[in-house]
Amino acid sequence: MQNKLDDLKNRLQEIEDLNSAGAVLNWDQATYMPPGGAPARGRQMGLLSRLAHERFTDPVIGHLLDDLRSYEESLEPEHDDAALIRVTRRNYERSVRIPPQLMANFNEHAALGYQTWTTARPADDFAAVQPHLEKTLDFSRRLADCFPGYDHIADPLINFADEGMKAESIRVLFADLRAQVVPLLRHILDQPEVDDSCIHQTFAEVKQRQFGEMIIRQLGYDFNRGRQDKTHHPFMTKFSLGDVRITTRFEEDYLSNGLFSTIHESGHAMYEQGIDMKYEGSPLAHGTSAGVHESQSRLWENVVGRSRAFWGHYYPQLQATFPQQLGDVSLNTFYNAINKVQPSLIRTEADQITYDLHVMIRFDLELALLEGSLEVKDLPEAWQARYQSDLGISAEGNRDGVLQDVHWYAGVIGGSFQGYTLGNIMSALFYRQALVTHPEIPSQIGRGEFDTLLGWLRENIYRHGAKFTADELVRRVTGGELTIEPYIAYLRGKFLE
Amino acid sequence: MQNKLDDLKNRLQEIEDLNSAGAVLNWDQATYMPPGGAPARGRQMGLLSRLAHERFTDPVIGHLLDDLRSYEESLEPEHDDAALIRVTRRNYERSVRIPPQLMANFNEHAALGYQTWTTARPADDFAAVQPHLEKTLDFSRRLADCFPGYDHIADPLINFADEGMKAESIRVLFADLRAQVVPLLRHILDQPEVDDSCIHQTFAEVKQRQFGEMIIRQLGYDFNRGRQDKTHHPFMTKFSLGDVRITTRFEEDYLSNGLFSTIHESGHAMYEQGIDMKYEGSPLAHGTSAGVHESQSRLWENVVGRSRAFWGHYYPQLQATFPQQLGDVSLNTFYNAINKVQPSLIRTEADQITYDLHVMIRFDLELALLEGSLEVKDLPEAWQARYQSDLGISAEGNRDGVLQDVHWYAGVIGGSFQGYTLGNIMSALFYRQALVTHPEIPSQIGRGEFDTLLGWLRENIYRHGAKFTADELVRRVTGGELTIEPYIAYLRGKFLE
Repeated sequence: MQNKLDDLKNRLQEIEDLNSAGAVLNWDQATYMPPGGAPARGRQMGLLSRLAHERFTDPVIGHLLDDLRSYEESLEPEHDDAALIRVTRRNYERSVRIPPQLMANFNEHAALGYQTWTTARPADDFAAVQPHLEKTLDFSRRLADCFPGYDHIADPLINFADEGMKAESIRVLFADLRAQVVPLLRHILDQPEVDDSCIHQTFAEVKQRQFGEMIIRQLGYDFNRGRQDKTHHPFMTKFSLGDVRITTRFEEDYLSNGLFSTIHESGHAMYEQGIDMKYEGSPLAHGTSAGVHESQSRLWENVVGRSRAFWGHYYPQLQATFPQQLGDVSLNTFYNAINKVQPSLIRTEADQITYDLHVMIRFDLELALLEGSLEVKDLPEAWQARYQSDLGISAEGNRDGVLQDVHWYAGVIGGSFQGYTLGNIMSALFYRQALVTHPEIPSQIGRGEFDTLLGWLRENIYRHGAKFTADELVRRVTGGELTIEPYIAYLRGKFLE
Repeated sequence: MQNKLDDLKNRLQEIEDLNSAGAVLNWDQATYMPPGGAPARGRQMGLLSRLAHERFTDPVIGHLLDDLRSYEESLEPEHDDAALIRVTRRNYERSVRIPPQLMANFNEHAALGYQTWTTARPADDFAAVQPHLEKTLDFSRRLADCFPGYDHIADPLINFADEGMKAESIRVLFADLRAQVVPLLRHILDQPEVDDSCIHQTFAEVKQRQFGEMIIRQLGYDFNRGRQDKTHHPFMTKFSLGDVRITTRFEEDYLSNGLFSTIHESGHAMYEQGIDMKYEGSPLAHGTSAGVHESQSRLWENVVGRSRAFWGHYYPQLQATFPQQLGDVSLNTFYNAINKVQPSLIRTEADQITYDLHVMIRFDLELALLEGSLEVKDLPEAWQARYQSDLGISAEGNRDGVLQDVHWYAGVIGGSFQGYTLGNIMSALFYRQALVTHPEIPSQIGRGEFDTLLGWLRENIYRHGAKFTADELVRRVTGGELTIEPYIAYLRGKFLE
């Protein structure tokens, strides 16, 4: 049995290594690659991805999993070997259900779609992407249909990113959240408008970068096992548990963008850096779901990084870094500026109150498209209508409307957005639980100390990697099911203070 | 037949893409990778290299080459398809003659050897590498023995790097060269010593970098299809014909190092950037031999970059970049400083006259080791003796002696060094031929114009990639065989002026 397990582990490690090599090529493309490298790079990444997929869907993997079933059943579910076999089987069964030709056609379509989108968005040209999106919708339904027996056609797609979640339960969760957030937003907008001009001055990029890196080093991001580089669209990527990198961007006339993007990505990265090294090279060496991953980026970005306690400690250092810009700006003015609530068009720049409304609009439109109650040609109008009704604003044209997010243009329609709000909900849930054990955490944050919080997150979440699903993790950590209550309490506490 | 050719081309492109992916991982390791990334990176590069080797030695490649033989023979040798089949067959037959297990064992041994060397060199500890080198010598002989019928046991190893060259012919060539260089060196050393203190001041790295990049851009290095990054040991690497990168290093207290290393690597890179795009993804899309490659780095570094005409144009710009350091230094003083001849211990820092003596010492010692007339344990002593007799100096210990170059510690013994001097010889040979057609080149260099020279090199050398061997290329370009005469004439002209 040990031979079979070793065989499986060796195969999985090679697959992980092929995927990691692809990730290095992708990182290079997004950071340093000269323009001339693009054509070959697409081909090279496609090859690595195909080789990894071929190896993972090799029937030998299926046979090994069959042979290992009795061993798996002899173990406690929490045993590492049991978890490895379980997670591998889940991924394997998912991979082999999708016909290779369908997957290849979809990948080619998605790559083309991304190219189309990169020119269509600046040109505000929805017509250019419409036929593409119609095909994407068709592909998305066909991918979902590889998993018959679903309650809602979006369920298999949601399951890719957030294992175990379903359209209906998310719809209920989001409806509850909306019922709480909308009155909160209305209340806030009734107050005098916050002056956030202090963060819209000129901030030299090199100093922004130094300050941001100082911050995330203190939070606990390990630069011996990572680094930060510049890119257009910030992301976290991992080449092994010893090399977890982040990328960021800076706007010299808007301090928040680079600073909070840096902290956000460091949250994703600290999750991956915290995974137990014994899982290296296996499918367990990954964050467990889109939602849990986002819970960690948002926890560090918002719950910690936009808190009053945090800036009580760091604001004098920020003032010393930018004395001309912030020397005469009070902590209170700065704190209010970085937490200003104001309906806006762009999701990634939204404040903590309106952010989830952006997500819900996309989630609802995805479901409507998949259900067939909305046609792609009517999508821009539906988008505008929802922004008007939910946020009271609407974009001129589609560039900052339905064309703003890359997800639908380079991936499936369905399952792309719920993780962001699930992450927000879980960030507050996990943070509250950490405080039950360590009520001293907020005052530590006020002294720039994060060891207790990071240690608790590592012990309870990070080290497990993909061993437990999001649901299982929530139950293990809180003893209950996923609930919006801590998140609502957090938002009310922060924004009604 | 077209189907077979397409099949072969597709397979070759995948193999090239796997090797290119490995090159990206290697580049990243040498430039940006954090320390924590090392263990997995070695594994990942090993996997890509193994996959590429497995695919290339697949018997299907052999069958395709057999099937394509009649087609190949129906074509002129210069036809692209004929060249592709010929070069692929040559590489294939070389690859399949080496037993996979021998290759794998050697690669593992070499990786370990590199690790050992990285600590043994700073510790001046030859004893630590001696048993390793003994094994390397054994491996090198076994690799050579995979190619029976050689005249000298070094021939197959030399052939890996410089197709068609043999130990005996190189020995003759080098003996002739030595007979010319030694009296020249003696004559130069009889002159008053050159004062090169002007290039040993403090030169800010950022300005060195800007100046160097300005220079190579004007030489013709295309930054849209390449970039320059910092590393410990400068190198050129290629991920596709659209992405040919160089790396460099700077010493703030020694101007020559960064500047000429930058020009040197750009020479390698302009060669690769100049290969005809129709060869992309095939074995033809590479420089043809170590010697020809080095001829281009040395041509641009020395024949152009250390010439009086070149600095007649660029020295005022260098003075403007470093006014404090060079404002009062005359062109003549600077020119003499960058061309100062002085026997020294380190090959990579040697001047143009002594450089080849460093190479010949290594070449002779390699042959003696392979022949069995020298034992590894006696290598340090033999090294010291040769440095004393040939250059009149010797190092204390072995750190700057036999431990200085990585080649024997991370590769085979044999065939590692001759390319450097073959490159010097060919650099003058090709340059003289360019001047036959374009006598205006030197005066163009004096105006900072390089289009004619680069155009000639592209037309006659670069665009062909690996289509012709070094010998064939020399014959095509000069109408004759490789000869040291133009190189000697160049050295005498320059250093006896």
